[in-house]
Amino acid sequence: MLINGVAARAIWTEGDAVAILDQTLLPHKIETVRLATLEDAAKAIKIMQVRGAPLIGVTAAFGMALAMRADASDAAAQKAASFLRAQRPTAVNLAWAVEKALEFLQDIAPSERAEKIFGFAQKLADDDVAANEAIGEHGLKIFREAASKRGDKPLRVLTHCNAGWLATVDWGTATAPIYKAQAAEIPLEIFVDETRPRNQGASLTAFELGQQGVEHHLIVDNAGGHFMRRGEVDLVIVGADRIAANGDVCNKIGTYLKALAAHDNAIPFYVAAPSSTFDFALEHGDLIPIEERDEAEVLTMAGRTACGGVATVGIAPETTHARNPGFDVTPARLVTGIITEKGVFAATTEALQKLACGAA
Amino acid sequence: MLINGVAARAIWTEGDAVAILDQTLLPHKIETVRLATLEDAAKAIKIMQVRGAPLIGVTAAFGMALAMRADASDAAAQKAASFLRAQRPTAVNLAWAVEKALEFLQDIAPSERAEKIFGFAQKLADDDVAANEAIGEHGLKIFREAASKRGDKPLRVLTHCNAGWLATVDWGTATAPIYKAQAAEIPLEIFVDETRPRNQGASLTAFELGQQGVEHHLIVDNAGGHFMRRGEVDLVIVGADRIAANGDVCNKIGTYLKALAAHDNAIPFYVAAPSSTFDFALEHGDLIPIEERDEAEVLTMAGRTACGGVATVGIAPETTHARNPGFDVTPARLVTGIITEKGVFAATTEALQKLACGAA
Repeated sequence: MLINGVAARAIWTEGDAVAILDQTLLPHKIETVRLATLEDAAKAIKIMQVRGAPLIGVTAAFGMALAMRADASDAAAQKAASFLRAQRPTAVNLAWAVEKALEFLQDIAPSERAEKIFGFAQKLADDDVAANEAIGEHGLKIFREAASKRGDKPLRVLTHCNAGWLATVDWGTATAPIYKAQAAEIPLEIFVDETRPRNQGASLTAFELGQQGVEHHLIVDNAGGHFMRRGEVDLVIVGADRIAANGDVCNKIGTYLKALAAHDNAIPFYVAAPSSTFDFALEHGDLIPIEERDEAEVLTMAGRTACGGVATVGIAPETTHARNPGFDVTPARLVTGIITEKGVFAATTEALQKLACGAA
Repeated sequence: MLINGVAARAIWTEGDAVAILDQTLLPHKIETVRLATLEDAAKAIKIMQVRGAPLIGVTAAFGMALAMRADASDAAAQKAASFLRAQRPTAVNLAWAVEKALEFLQDIAPSERAEKIFGFAQKLADDDVAANEAIGEHGLKIFREAASKRGDKPLRVLTHCNAGWLATVDWGTATAPIYKAQAAEIPLEIFVDETRPRNQGASLTAFELGQQGVEHHLIVDNAGGHFMRRGEVDLVIVGADRIAANGDVCNKIGTYLKALAAHDNAIPFYVAAPSSTFDFALEHGDLIPIEERDEAEVLTMAGRTACGGVATVGIAPETTHARNPGFDVTPARLVTGIITEKGVFAATTEALQKLACGAA
């Protein structure tokens, strides 16, 4: 997708090195970071210059590649894998990508490892792009049908958090159908939920859509229900962090409230996620542990000062404590459909069984 | 209620003058402002040193009193009334209080006006306190019953925005049953919605409850649904800006989403408001015009800096636009009951008819 009018990915190679956007500075500054060593890649993951499960995974794979260039021994590969995993211990995609890289290296002679593992990392990136683009194509059919009811007027879509290309290598998940619809010249108007406490909607989704020239409005998380009641939203689309076998969806905190409002107003509520997001071992969503995060995320807010710097301000009395669940579970009964790279599935155990068995 | 351990009201007389808390500085600084003239009172209303419908009304009445002290003529009274009304033209309580003051002055000789109108303003303040305390007593019965199901464990109550004593003269509306329950030694745990975009929960409700020593947690507006699904909330209570004849409730943006979540989880959802909040001329809530406010409220956030000052930061890309509806309408079907100073009413046209006809 576009950055300053130029097609970009969230991670790319630049000569011998790997490059990323420093997402900690977005939307206030657009800066590229060059990753020349394993340590650079690990740091980018740790301090969240890259975030989003798919992007973390691909960055870790490139981190393994950078490590192999310095020392292609088995011992170095194991050491690099442990080092990368330790940067964000709970990131499932990180551990998965590192494991895949180790498996790949096993069959290759040390002298060829440095070159070939770069190809492996690049393929991981390309696979992510392909999966998201396929989600976009499947979602486009849904958008097209919804738009046909709007005549010449824009299709009005609400999204929560950032399931955008900045969380992946390109296209994003929930945003992929938006970008495909834009390319298909379907007029769009996107409602972007701010998404407190970390504000990924205000800082990343609004940024992406602005860079891409997609018409959008930022709204506070409180406002989506009102716009749905007033008939100003045609469709809701969100991403997912984990989906249970019955179609219950674990996603960013606040998703459940929007699903309730969509249901109350007979508005379709879609989840866009690659098939790797499903956890078929989980019968239903209430079995998913919900992480409570640092209360400082709630008690403070970061933003751009009048002087152009970035500052963090405290928004509550100094003695106030907060609770900060990172995710919630939206029951399958509120989900109209799940858009994957393999097609669109109903949020039911039966429909998803096909995906689980690879029959889709 | 308490400020720094001392019982306070949101407006009080101090010798010849009137005093208020400067609410623009809360929760970061506690400062008293002395209102010695009509102009002082008007400014306090305009720059929102006082906010909340009941408190604005009472401040305006005191403003009329201060004006009469300087010049007790009919012309001066009319001029003061126009001047006060112009400070916040859409505040219904302001116009109402000013009108009441003019009516009161009509029958009084100019020489006696200055003294008597102070008494009138004071009575308006006392009436507000009495109405809110009555709401607290009626609400206490509901809290007591809900608490009885919790044994020794705290009653867990979620509230949205600030329908607290700082929006009234004392007690507040949604907070009145909370303070009464505290006094009755019912253990409490309050979930305080941050309430973006203006953050009245984080800055005012958290402040009030902290000052009063009521156990509470600040949460982002996104989180309430999750806590309700997980069985961590026993009761929801909110205020109201306007209630239609059928029980539809217009209140701060985001209220509807919490009502949906309460309904989905069979949690009682109560609205606390004086009977003056009802607009029986409105058949249902969708007839209530919803003000869209300045987008800057969404695009920025104010808070305390590390150096102890207060700063405003921009949280979205500089080119992003926002939409900012101030209120939403919660359909009566989602409301368990409406707690007024005259008792608790079902949110139905039939039940509220009794209140409309003064039979309650």
